[in-house]
Amino acid sequence: MDFHNVDIVLVGTLGSGNLGSVARAMCNMGLAHLKLVSPRCALDEQAFWMATCGEDVLKCAHVFPTLREAIADCSYCFGTTARHRRWRQTLSPRDAAQKTLGLCKTNRVAFVFGPEDSGLTNEELELCHEVITIPTVSSATSLNLSHAVMIICYELFMVTRQQPKTLRSTRLAPVAMTEAMYDHMRTTLFEIGFLNRQNPDYTLGLMRRILTKAKLTIPEARFIRGIFRQLAWYVKSREQKKEVNS
Amino acid sequence: MDFHNVDIVLVGTLGSGNLGSVARAMCNMGLAHLKLVSPRCALDEQAFWMATCGEDVLKCAHVFPTLREAIADCSYCFGTTARHRRWRQTLSPRDAAQKTLGLCKTNRVAFVFGPEDSGLTNEELELCHEVITIPTVSSATSLNLSHAVMIICYELFMVTRQQPKTLRSTRLAPVAMTEAMYDHMRTTLFEIGFLNRQNPDYTLGLMRRILTKAKLTIPEARFIRGIFRQLAWYVKSREQKKEVNS
Repeated sequence: MDFHNVDIVLVGTLGSGNLGSVARAMCNMGLAHLKLVSPRCALDEQAFWMATCGEDVLKCAHVFPTLREAIADCSYCFGTTARHRRWRQTLSPRDAAQKTLGLCKTNRVAFVFGPEDSGLTNEELELCHEVITIPTVSSATSLNLSHAVMIICYELFMVTRQQPKTLRSTRLAPVAMTEAMYDHMRTTLFEIGFLNRQNPDYTLGLMRRILTKAKLTIPEARFIRGIFRQLAWYVKSREQKKEVNS
Repeated sequence: MDFHNVDIVLVGTLGSGNLGSVARAMCNMGLAHLKLVSPRCALDEQAFWMATCGEDVLKCAHVFPTLREAIADCSYCFGTTARHRRWRQTLSPRDAAQKTLGLCKTNRVAFVFGPEDSGLTNEELELCHEVITIPTVSSATSLNLSHAVMIICYELFMVTRQQPKTLRSTRLAPVAMTEAMYDHMRTTLFEIGFLNRQNPDYTLGLMRRILTKAKLTIPEARFIRGIFRQLAWYVKSREQKKEVNS
């Protein structure tokens, strides 16, 4: 799925830096169509500086005098608001994204965001088919404009990645290999005096539990065995030197 | 659930406006603990202007000279990167949030973000238990810093709204303890000739990944360190015997 049928619509934006940040967020998540309704700032240097990869999104942005004109070609519009409106049920960004997936193949869909200071008016929200509220803690419901846009774009991008779950399967080391590794370990840990000859099983059991949790792959089991092989070699070479010296 | 056990850690941040935007995003989603590692900007007027509701988050931010010190009290750290690293599997923000829900009841968990221009270094990512990549289109993988933080905070907030599942939470070894263990390991593996002095990092990195998968508890980290302590003792005692004999 691509998002050629999805518009981000910003109403009465105050900060040109926010325009840039919104363009960058859209670009990161594969959205290209930005509509500006009576912006109260210019597409200036600050906007382009903040846009980075979203420069083209900014350059292609269309400006409209009213929201009604901006969404005239859209078949479904989601308005965003932080305020709880008693008379209307709100949708989560995740549910809205899921809904968009079904709609946008054959319909133009818009996500509408209000000015930084006041949000969308009731009249503007009336023009929208549904209202989204981004979940926040109740004590701080007002999001930065570009953060709000990013969350919507991110959720849209995430629904395109949903697929029937195929579990990634890693090939683990077979028992023959891990047991050979533990045998090697047992011998060497005896040699260096780490294991008590009376009760080595407790210690080896602990080692087993740690490495079982790690779910060793074949190269990893070889690697661990390699450490103990090197250790055995070291012990042996020291013993030989001792014998030569004595 | 609240997030008193979750830290947002920003490394080498360049823009004070970004510090403010991050604080605002955290506040919107109910996170309060911000750690700054050698920030390259001040907590100035611009930072507080961008923070709005996140003013207290900024005021309470702690500054550390190194990442290692910043995460010393954390038992699980997620590093974030846009770059694909062939040798390491990355996690989605959603999966990381789900994992955090289980961990953060009894463990301090950190989310680490690199500087705006370059991201986290490989060395910094090595200190993290797992790596998160935020999904984006492949042509524009670099997110605005505060957008990246917002997506993580938003996903964390979203998991708290899911049906209460009872997740078993184990207390894991903090970074200060595991890093001391790796330091001990490095020294001892050099002694027995397992590590090549030219390129020890590859081998130690492999060891780190195996033990990270194992999610070491405090007694387990002590146990592994005990093996290497015993090994160091063995090496030293052999060297002394050699000297006595020669």
